[in-house]
Amino acid sequence: MERLNRKERVAAILKILSDNPNKVISLSFFQENFSMARSTLSEDVTILKKVVEDIGVGSVETVAGPTGGVRFVPSLREEDRQSFLKELCESLKNKDRIMPGGFLYTNDLIFSPEITNKLGIIFASYFRDKEPDYVLTVETKGIPIAMMTARYLNVPLVIVRRENKGAEGPTVSINYVSGSKRQIQTMSLPKRAVKKGSKVVFIDDFMRAGGTAKGIIKLMEEFESKVVGVGVFIEAKTEKKLVQDYISLLILNNVDEEREIIDVKLKNN
Amino acid sequence: MERLNRKERVAAILKILSDNPNKVISLSFFQENFSMARSTLSEDVTILKKVVEDIGVGSVETVAGPTGGVRFVPSLREEDRQSFLKELCESLKNKDRIMPGGFLYTNDLIFSPEITNKLGIIFASYFRDKEPDYVLTVETKGIPIAMMTARYLNVPLVIVRRENKGAEGPTVSINYVSGSKRQIQTMSLPKRAVKKGSKVVFIDDFMRAGGTAKGIIKLMEEFESKVVGVGVFIEAKTEKKLVQDYISLLILNNVDEEREIIDVKLKNN
Repeated sequence: MERLNRKERVAAILKILSDNPNKVISLSFFQENFSMARSTLSEDVTILKKVVEDIGVGSVETVAGPTGGVRFVPSLREEDRQSFLKELCESLKNKDRIMPGGFLYTNDLIFSPEITNKLGIIFASYFRDKEPDYVLTVETKGIPIAMMTARYLNVPLVIVRRENKGAEGPTVSINYVSGSKRQIQTMSLPKRAVKKGSKVVFIDDFMRAGGTAKGIIKLMEEFESKVVGVGVFIEAKTEKKLVQDYISLLILNNVDEEREIIDVKLKNN
Repeated sequence: MERLNRKERVAAILKILSDNPNKVISLSFFQENFSMARSTLSEDVTILKKVVEDIGVGSVETVAGPTGGVRFVPSLREEDRQSFLKELCESLKNKDRIMPGGFLYTNDLIFSPEITNKLGIIFASYFRDKEPDYVLTVETKGIPIAMMTARYLNVPLVIVRRENKGAEGPTVSINYVSGSKRQIQTMSLPKRAVKKGSKVVFIDDFMRAGGTAKGIIKLMEEFESKVVGVGVFIEAKTEKKLVQDYISLLILNNVDEEREIIDVKLKNN
């Protein structure tokens, strides 16, 4: 790299930090790549702390110690988070989304890179303090949101399958009862996918009674691992949930097929 | 936002552009948010063009005209692309990946946020000139790579399902023959998921004979849409492919179960 002047270098450092969310990058990496003194780097980091706070995209943190360095932790300002989720609510209220059976069509939202990117930042902010080793999801519709959450937590994504395809070696399968339909379902995960003694966060697009989340907790017991957080994008209002400890961003109170009214609101977490 | 000085502002502008890959952001957005003159902004953009080129993360482009502005287009330097793919090859050669039946365990790679992020940048670079309206994939294992490709192309992701769950309204299903196993398979997509007359790019983690890709081409015909690009992470060496026009990053020549040797190489595109 050719020698950059300060304003160029500050931008370059932020770009590198931002491309590696929640990852500690050593100060010596920057010193070597930009041939700069430690004191100059410290001043640059101070500038960056101010910049990211000012535009409300997260924080730049200094981590002390031998494995220390600097990292970018993405987050949304509370007002930006609220207005983003309110926009999603408005979009969800569109009556064209009502499918026969009272289902709600949400694929355009939960598969949107722009939307799932922000949802990933929101969930990562909730669960970062839990220091998870993995983000888990069950195929299929929760994958994009879980993927972005894993990216912003800087941990691997693990996808639990509905059936054992047999191509992934020794696999643990469990049966569980879906809370709403009372049907027996299966979920499978290769033994090597999650290390013993891990902490995992489960992310999904939708929760009705929470049967899937309960299944995941049971599955993780087989891996001698622990679910330290459950996050769902939309929760359906139900009489009783099978899990108590979870975070949801929106709550779907009712879909009135006849009057074509969708009652969906922000959940207060 | 409080008034930022130039070095702060340059970093802030790059962060905003970088968070919205391949999206044209109007100059007036920046002028208003940072209360700056057009001429100053032009100078900042010139600085940013140099910065991103220097650290090899893509390019900052100025787009003229009434809908114009500035955008960040991510890409990898050829040498970084090569060394990244070579690292993946080395990882793939680990004999512990060999599963009964000669399958290769790749979940840790194709679900890794860090790896799929780079694969997304690579595929987006290949297909950007095709100006696709959507990135398509078939559940499940290709979703993370397809998701990141869609993010860097700034287009929606569409996930084709293996079965029609019935909760997504009118759906188009087709049957196709998988090229390798010669089995009849089904793929389904809600009618509203792809607009008539669209251009789509199909992304998957693995291609054997190309039966799935051929199925997608057939499915898109039902949507009066066109597959303008096919990109797969790993291609298996086969006698004959059912599709001719595709890009693969790695080629898996052979998995020798007995001698525990995996022959995988970079594909020359």
